[in-house]
Amino acid sequence: MAGELLQRRHRLLGQHAPLFYEEPLEIVSGEGVWLTSADGRRYLDVYNNVPSCGHCHPHIIAALTGQASRLNVHTRYLHNTILDYVERLTALFDPSLDMAMLTCSGSEANELALRMVRHMTGHQGIIVTDGAYHGNTEAVAELGTGFMPEAEGCQRVVGIPAPDSYRLPPGVTTETAEDYYVAQVESAIETLQSRGMGVAGILLCPEFANEGLLNAPEGFIDRAVAAVRAAGGLYIADEVQGGFGRTGHHWWSHQQHESVPDVVTLGKPMGNGHPLAGIIARRDLVEPFSATAMYFNTFAGNPVSCAVGMAVLDVIEQEGLMANAVSTGAHVKAGLDKLALASTAIGDVRQKGLFFGVELISDPATRAPDTRLAKQVVNQLKDRGVLISSIGQHNNVLKMRPPLPFGPEHGDILLAALGEVLLETDTP
Amino acid sequence: MAGELLQRRHRLLGQHAPLFYEEPLEIVSGEGVWLTSADGRRYLDVYNNVPSCGHCHPHIIAALTGQASRLNVHTRYLHNTILDYVERLTALFDPSLDMAMLTCSGSEANELALRMVRHMTGHQGIIVTDGAYHGNTEAVAELGTGFMPEAEGCQRVVGIPAPDSYRLPPGVTTETAEDYYVAQVESAIETLQSRGMGVAGILLCPEFANEGLLNAPEGFIDRAVAAVRAAGGLYIADEVQGGFGRTGHHWWSHQQHESVPDVVTLGKPMGNGHPLAGIIARRDLVEPFSATAMYFNTFAGNPVSCAVGMAVLDVIEQEGLMANAVSTGAHVKAGLDKLALASTAIGDVRQKGLFFGVELISDPATRAPDTRLAKQVVNQLKDRGVLISSIGQHNNVLKMRPPLPFGPEHGDILLAALGEVLLETDTP
Repeated sequence: MAGELLQRRHRLLGQHAPLFYEEPLEIVSGEGVWLTSADGRRYLDVYNNVPSCGHCHPHIIAALTGQASRLNVHTRYLHNTILDYVERLTALFDPSLDMAMLTCSGSEANELALRMVRHMTGHQGIIVTDGAYHGNTEAVAELGTGFMPEAEGCQRVVGIPAPDSYRLPPGVTTETAEDYYVAQVESAIETLQSRGMGVAGILLCPEFANEGLLNAPEGFIDRAVAAVRAAGGLYIADEVQGGFGRTGHHWWSHQQHESVPDVVTLGKPMGNGHPLAGIIARRDLVEPFSATAMYFNTFAGNPVSCAVGMAVLDVIEQEGLMANAVSTGAHVKAGLDKLALASTAIGDVRQKGLFFGVELISDPATRAPDTRLAKQVVNQLKDRGVLISSIGQHNNVLKMRPPLPFGPEHGDILLAALGEVLLETDTP
Repeated sequence: MAGELLQRRHRLLGQHAPLFYEEPLEIVSGEGVWLTSADGRRYLDVYNNVPSCGHCHPHIIAALTGQASRLNVHTRYLHNTILDYVERLTALFDPSLDMAMLTCSGSEANELALRMVRHMTGHQGIIVTDGAYHGNTEAVAELGTGFMPEAEGCQRVVGIPAPDSYRLPPGVTTETAEDYYVAQVESAIETLQSRGMGVAGILLCPEFANEGLLNAPEGFIDRAVAAVRAAGGLYIADEVQGGFGRTGHHWWSHQQHESVPDVVTLGKPMGNGHPLAGIIARRDLVEPFSATAMYFNTFAGNPVSCAVGMAVLDVIEQEGLMANAVSTGAHVKAGLDKLALASTAIGDVRQKGLFFGVELISDPATRAPDTRLAKQVVNQLKDRGVLISSIGQHNNVLKMRPPLPFGPEHGDILLAALGEVLLETDTP
């Protein structure tokens, strides 16, 4: 059955349409933190951050259905829903970030942010971290330094090494790491200026999620942003992964630092799976940009999407999902730390709320990344009914970011399964 | 009330977020071809092509609700819905167009098409028609020759005059028009080659919808495509406006011509308002492109979007909407032609199925476009409870493309209101 499905998929979508797992899963239904496959097996979802309020949340489905039954139309008529939503959403940010422009996807949000900072600064140059993924359009693919074809030879984007405190470059120590990574930003600024591109901005996921959920040296972001601003550039925080309360203590992951972004891009969990994304930005950027750039988006900001977005905010607030991210996050972190003591394969355990990165290594002395083991663990956990994935420059970091209603009891299932898999692997 | 809403909107979305009408409308509900405003007034919708199956269609809402209650997740797990949908959708195209890649918006679809033809040809140059709008991302904004800031000075895009058979350039006659417009394509090819860009392709809306729903000289598209192909480029047909049966006789507007596109982009009506779009392309383009370009789209192709897309196809087929587009289209066309005999303000009436363009002029001898009158007619029709808009290079073409369940009885309401407005204006 799965074989036949796979054949049809190759015929209709192509052989390279990305799929998870050595033996792909056919998922047919979801509820809360659980997914069910075609053969009736239940899987604990420790991967999906898009259905952040839980799969098929009844309050969100009610909002979707209710508004879809009344009206779904573009934003060139007046409608209360978009205004109520944007008012409530922008209130969750620094007061300077008081306007929104909505889109359908994180790619569109990053596109819009890039267009805006390039228009407003008159510069083209953008600084990103190597290994970060920000979306699939051409200008955004250019940001995928090191792995996207559009980034190759692109003169207006410069990638810097992701600020990794665990896997330091040769000659760099914990004490010198912050200065080292800030110097990379300064060097990128010089490169862009010497190419005549100027500096339009720096675009960062403040969690460095795709790079491996890195712990950056503490002062890195604030110093990097200051250097970019001194060169006339702006700060874009990509909250597509880190936003909407996932990190627990803050609504937005940039709020861990002093620097207030000029533009924030939002996506994935914003509509719990409904295509909803957007940017939050300062009035003095939005107004002049909109006056010249003719931005309109047919689907974005329609009343159905906004009703869904509002319901997502309801659930995060009413169900205490951020407090749960803090407490369950700490519970799981403690379990992972304990596991790290028992297994030499775990080099580092990183956690922010309900986002976990577990670095797998083949040698504690050299911290050599164990990509093969990570792949094996991901597939063996699937066989045990637990869904996770892997990320990072070496694809050796276990990536776990479950729907936010994930409780300690779910954490214990994950920890038990992970313990079994790592112990089995440790003793061949 | 509308004043207060407008103030809030300016504060939250900015003063330049596009709005319709001198006095914007607050729309609160929709059903079939009717919209209702906050003050309880009903408006006949002769504008909206996105809710193409009719506003709030119960079959589509049932599909949306049903699937959203079961599962909404990305496409890296196997799922039948996307395969069933893509199989049914691609069957509506020439057999060579047998694969799909789904997106959330028409902008994303055109982005993907551009990335694909540029990857596959190794060339950068794209030919478009002046005055066409294809979306809001940077690479797509570059296609907005003459009005988008990104198009200004862009070396890899060349705009040609839209092939207008009504408003011919000086010295061009009906007999020489086809040769003239084809020569523009040949000249654009030379320009791109002399710039070292090469020719990646030509991207056209086969209806020339934004350009004013033009009647192009009959052989233009086939000859233009042949010239582009001879230069190593590909043909992208943008069916975001012309597709999904709107023109009545064909599912896709490119099917009026011999040339089979290499890539077709889809959008607006695809999900009846749900953010669903995509491209249909040949296997020998999709497979090698996907192998190198790492395309993935978090929201696109999820089971909810695909269930909605499937329901849209159901409605078009089961309710005979294409046959209705032919018959009601002809009925309205006859009425508009009659009106054109009575009013010297109508210079040309163009129609394809349920898509109408009525050219307003101030002088039958010179065919001088009457932009002011078009604006007046749009606003006065709104006061009479009929919603339309205007388009074209001079914004003097009345743009009418109602939801497809628009019947002759609705056409008569439109014709009566339009007659009143034009007669009133004719006799001051």
